This record gives sequence, structure tokens and C-alpha cells, in this order.
Amino acid sequence: MSEPSTGELHVTPPATTPTTSIDDAVAGLKFDAAGLLPAVVQDDGDGTVLMVAWMDAEAVRRTLSSGRTWFWSRSRRQYWQKGETSGHIQRVRSVTADCDRDTLLVRVEQVGPACHTGTRSCFSNPLRGDA
Amino acid sequence: MSEPSTGELHVTPPATTPTTSIDDAVAGLKFDAAGLLPAVVQDDGDGTVLMVAWMDAEAVRRTLSSGRTWFWSRSRRQYWQKGETSGHIQRVRSVTADCDRDTLLVRVEQVGPACHTGTRSCFSNPLRGDA
Repeated sequence: MSEPSTGELHVTPPATTPTTSIDDAVAGLKFDAAGLLPAVVQDDGDGTVLMVAWMDAEAVRRTLSSGRTWFWSRSRRQYWQKGETSGHIQRVRSVTADCDRDTLLVRVEQVGPACHTGTRSCFSNPLRGDA
Repeated sequence: MSEPSTGELHVTPPATTPTTSIDDAVAGLKFDAAGLLPAVVQDDGDGTVLMVAWMDAEAVRRTLSSGRTWFWSRSRRQYWQKGETSGHIQRVRSVTADCDRDTLLVRVEQVGPACHTGTRSCFSNPLRGDA
């Protein structure tokens, strides 16, 4: 908005959300003592649960504003964008909070495998059943 | 095993897992500093993500041995079986750990709505998108 006018119409990409809406959305969430909440990432096409990772308020903001998934790595203590190095990005289709507003469900279009091990979903170790 | 023999064949219900398998399964999981891990509960029929709740080792054991979902309530500091009072139980179809073995995906047959608010899924507060 502070950029000099070029005479061009500034079109907001459809994947993004206005800043005020983002601030409102983040303000309504409940983060744990470490400032984090779990985000369940689900394939928007067929419903496969791909992975679970952690977001703080800033990661939620980046996810909503960019239309790509951003997380906080608890082990590396830094932000990471899914697919930043592998190219296996996640295009955000919707973000929904649960009834307690302390967990997010992020539906995405997944490019390539979601798991760093090369499997489509990170959930590949059956404890029981036919999964 | 320590019960006196009644001459009857002891048939393990199909939904349960032998104790040794359960101990092995739990031993392979990574719990956080509070002894917990998040469990994503998904409808085995149509893939809807119903809820996320927390399990400690004992809740995982109860879930695997009973074929019903058991969780640890962080606020009430007690175990709870989903549907114990409402009747909206979850019949466990499979339990799968992720690549880090610090999150579980529990696929269930859900009886009634999963959410205490009466909605089918707890994820009913869209932050963005058409969910």
C-alpha cells in the first residue's frame, strides 16, 4: 500500500488473506505455554492426513498470508516453510480451528510426498490395524 | 492369564491387541516433556478429521487394549474415554505413528457427533477458505 502507484491495479492473489483478518484470526487462537499449537495437515483432495507440525502465532500469520504452510521447528528452533528445500510445497486450501481453538486443521494441495522419508504421508508406522 | 482355568477357550476380541504387542508399541513412541503426544482422530469411513486430543503411555495402552479411544485431559488431569458419558464412542480401526513417532493417527468408526458441541467434527471454526 505504501508503494508508489504504478497505475497498475494491485490484485491480491486469491491464496492470501488481508492482514486485519489474519490478526483477528490469530488473536482468537489459544497457544500452549510454549506459544505453540499443533497443526494437522490434510490432503484436500482425498482426505489423507499427511503430517502434524507446530505453529506459533507468526507461523499462522505466514501461512495465512502466503498460502503456503509455515511451521515452527521445536528441535531446530526456527521457522520452516514446508517444501522450501525439497520443493514439496503445500498450497493452503483452508485453515480451520477446533472447538477449543487450540488446534488447526490445514487442508492443502500437496506437491510430491509430504514426508521427508519419501512416503506420501508421515503416518506410516502402524501400531495396530490395517493402516 | 492368572485366572483359574474354566475349561473355556479364552477368545481375544478382535479389537484388542496382545499385551506384549502393546508394550512394544508404546515403548517405540516418543512423548513430550509432559509425557504426552497428540492423537489425530479420523473417521475411517470418509476421512473426516474429527478431533485432536492427548494421550500418555497409559492412554495409548488403554486405546490399544480396549479398541476404544482413551485420552488424557490436560485441564482436568484425568483419563477420559471418548463417549463414556455421551455414548458417542469411537471404535478404533487402526492406530499409526508418524515418522518421528511422536504423533498418532487413530482411524475410528465414530458413533454420533465427535464434538461435545454437537457438530460432527471439532474443526468447525474456519480461519480461511471454504471449510
